[in-house]
Amino acid sequence: MNIVIDAMGPEQGPGVIIDGINNVADQLKKCKIYLIGNKALLDKYLFENKTTIMAEHEIIHTENNISMDDTPSKVLNTKMDSSIAIGIKTSMGLENSAFLSMGNTGAVMAFSLKIMGRMNGVIRPAIGTVFPVGRHPLLLDMGATPDCKGEMLHQFALIGSEYSKAVWDIKNPVVALMSIGTEDSKGSIVTQKAFELLSQDKSINFYGNIEGSDLFNNIADVIVFDGFTGNIVIKFAEGMVSFLKEGIKDVSSSSLASKIGMGLAKNNLKQFFKHLSYDEYGGAPLLGVNGISIVGHGKSNARAVSSAVLNAAVLIEHDFLRHVKSRMEERSVYAK
Amino acid sequence: MNIVIDAMGPEQGPGVIIDGINNVADQLKKCKIYLIGNKALLDKYLFENKTTIMAEHEIIHTENNISMDDTPSKVLNTKMDSSIAIGIKTSMGLENSAFLSMGNTGAVMAFSLKIMGRMNGVIRPAIGTVFPVGRHPLLLDMGATPDCKGEMLHQFALIGSEYSKAVWDIKNPVVALMSIGTEDSKGSIVTQKAFELLSQDKSINFYGNIEGSDLFNNIADVIVFDGFTGNIVIKFAEGMVSFLKEGIKDVSSSSLASKIGMGLAKNNLKQFFKHLSYDEYGGAPLLGVNGISIVGHGKSNARAVSSAVLNAAVLIEHDFLRHVKSRMEERSVYAK
Repeated sequence: MNIVIDAMGPEQGPGVIIDGINNVADQLKKCKIYLIGNKALLDKYLFENKTTIMAEHEIIHTENNISMDDTPSKVLNTKMDSSIAIGIKTSMGLENSAFLSMGNTGAVMAFSLKIMGRMNGVIRPAIGTVFPVGRHPLLLDMGATPDCKGEMLHQFALIGSEYSKAVWDIKNPVVALMSIGTEDSKGSIVTQKAFELLSQDKSINFYGNIEGSDLFNNIADVIVFDGFTGNIVIKFAEGMVSFLKEGIKDVSSSSLASKIGMGLAKNNLKQFFKHLSYDEYGGAPLLGVNGISIVGHGKSNARAVSSAVLNAAVLIEHDFLRHVKSRMEERSVYAK
Repeated sequence: MNIVIDAMGPEQGPGVIIDGINNVADQLKKCKIYLIGNKALLDKYLFENKTTIMAEHEIIHTENNISMDDTPSKVLNTKMDSSIAIGIKTSMGLENSAFLSMGNTGAVMAFSLKIMGRMNGVIRPAIGTVFPVGRHPLLLDMGATPDCKGEMLHQFALIGSEYSKAVWDIKNPVVALMSIGTEDSKGSIVTQKAFELLSQDKSINFYGNIEGSDLFNNIADVIVFDGFTGNIVIKFAEGMVSFLKEGIKDVSSSSLASKIGMGLAKNNLKQFFKHLSYDEYGGAPLLGVNGISIVGHGKSNARAVSSAVLNAAVLIEHDFLRHVKSRMEERSVYAK
């Protein structure tokens, strides 16, 4: 298996990538790692930390990077020599491969679509995220396709089901549709159409509509959103977790009793917020393209890199791409 | 001023309404309260609690109620004798009046639209909610209009600005547009159109696009959503607050140190969650109809009723309706 990693992605620099690989090196024995990025920077990190890369690997040197502020439309034509573009090309040139970046999400999506292309039969791609509550469902789309039609949401449900089967070994994943109101007739014009298509599709274990608060109610393995709503909800959730961490900190410093109290409770609170963090969920896969492409958070630490690398290995090992392809071809009702 | 209250709304029964009025009776000297509901139930509560209604009032007896499970389409033709329908009719028959219900939101919206009618020039109504963080912005639409066009979002910005001026005395309220990505060009087709209209409207103090996490960043006084996204975000927020309260409770019971610790910190944590609760924000106004109609949460306690009653009084006193009307007529570019 070949895992191609953009070494220039993380805000903390390439050291996070090296540490993330080394932490799980014993689980990567069947993998070859390709590190794409500035070789001098990588060597510097290895030298300063007196370490080596403990997995079979190859470094592919690139000079050009994409920053977090670059817009996808701008870089698409000007930065074909960036670590992201070269990484995706490298991945496409290899069998049994996946690409992974902790860099600019928009740029990874744009280059993945350009270089890997859309999968046959897929109208629009989706980006997935694991929601770290209840049965940890896959939420999709989290922002790849802001303007969705019912048919696209139907496809997201199909792709999400395959993901859930391949990565989590769930036999008959439950799929829910994010809407307003739980009655069958509720929702927007788009979700009403999606509801109809999902109800008719016997190959999907469709639960029906759910509401925003149901994300905490352990209902489904896959939850389908249009990319506009999904992106706003997931960013809102991130903002709320930061806000709450600050709030709990303020509580701790608001009185002596609270300070002592929260000090005593600290380890358990940490545990609780860890549960709500995105470090352990293997990054966000871009779904519906002709390859495995995973984006992680720019603020990723080594732990987040480790879980994303392992997740990439699982997707390759379980032949995720072939499964989705055959599912989409079987059911290519919307292929144009 | 006349405040007409659906006494049958709260899940806890009409006692919450009576207590809510009595708690702020000294601030209601210029108001007459109309209580709509089952007179026997109201009298029973007064008798059992050895209390009276401490504001000038009149009770209008109704037999029929709308439950939380009734669908708006069902009750619209069959329950014209319900406390909600009679209440809205009563309010419309009075000068300087507002209607308030803690009952079924969909039914209040449907009857308000049917009996009060849409305001001249307003394409679709919106429901507002105060977000209890930062400068406590008005968010709208939270679910009245799931399928929005850019023109509707533009109108929500105009109405929200007037609300912010009338209720909070903010001279030049900042309006932000909820979108994905903060760049001007980001968003869905609908928000891109709204962005263009809002940018051109010199009467609006338009900040630009914001993302989901920016709700915690103290940016705007009014934040415009389409009703589909708004409803999902606000229900997600409610679900997250409940989930966190449970989580903090679990932390408290997970070890002896935590139990002691969280016990010591309890008062401050309570304070913190109160900040995040919806009790103190005066209910959700239905905006764009020809009258003042406010819906509160079914789980409202007396405190929530008090703040909604006072909010209704402020809207009447500041002549909110006339202000919005003239603003919408001035700018009735979309009137059909």
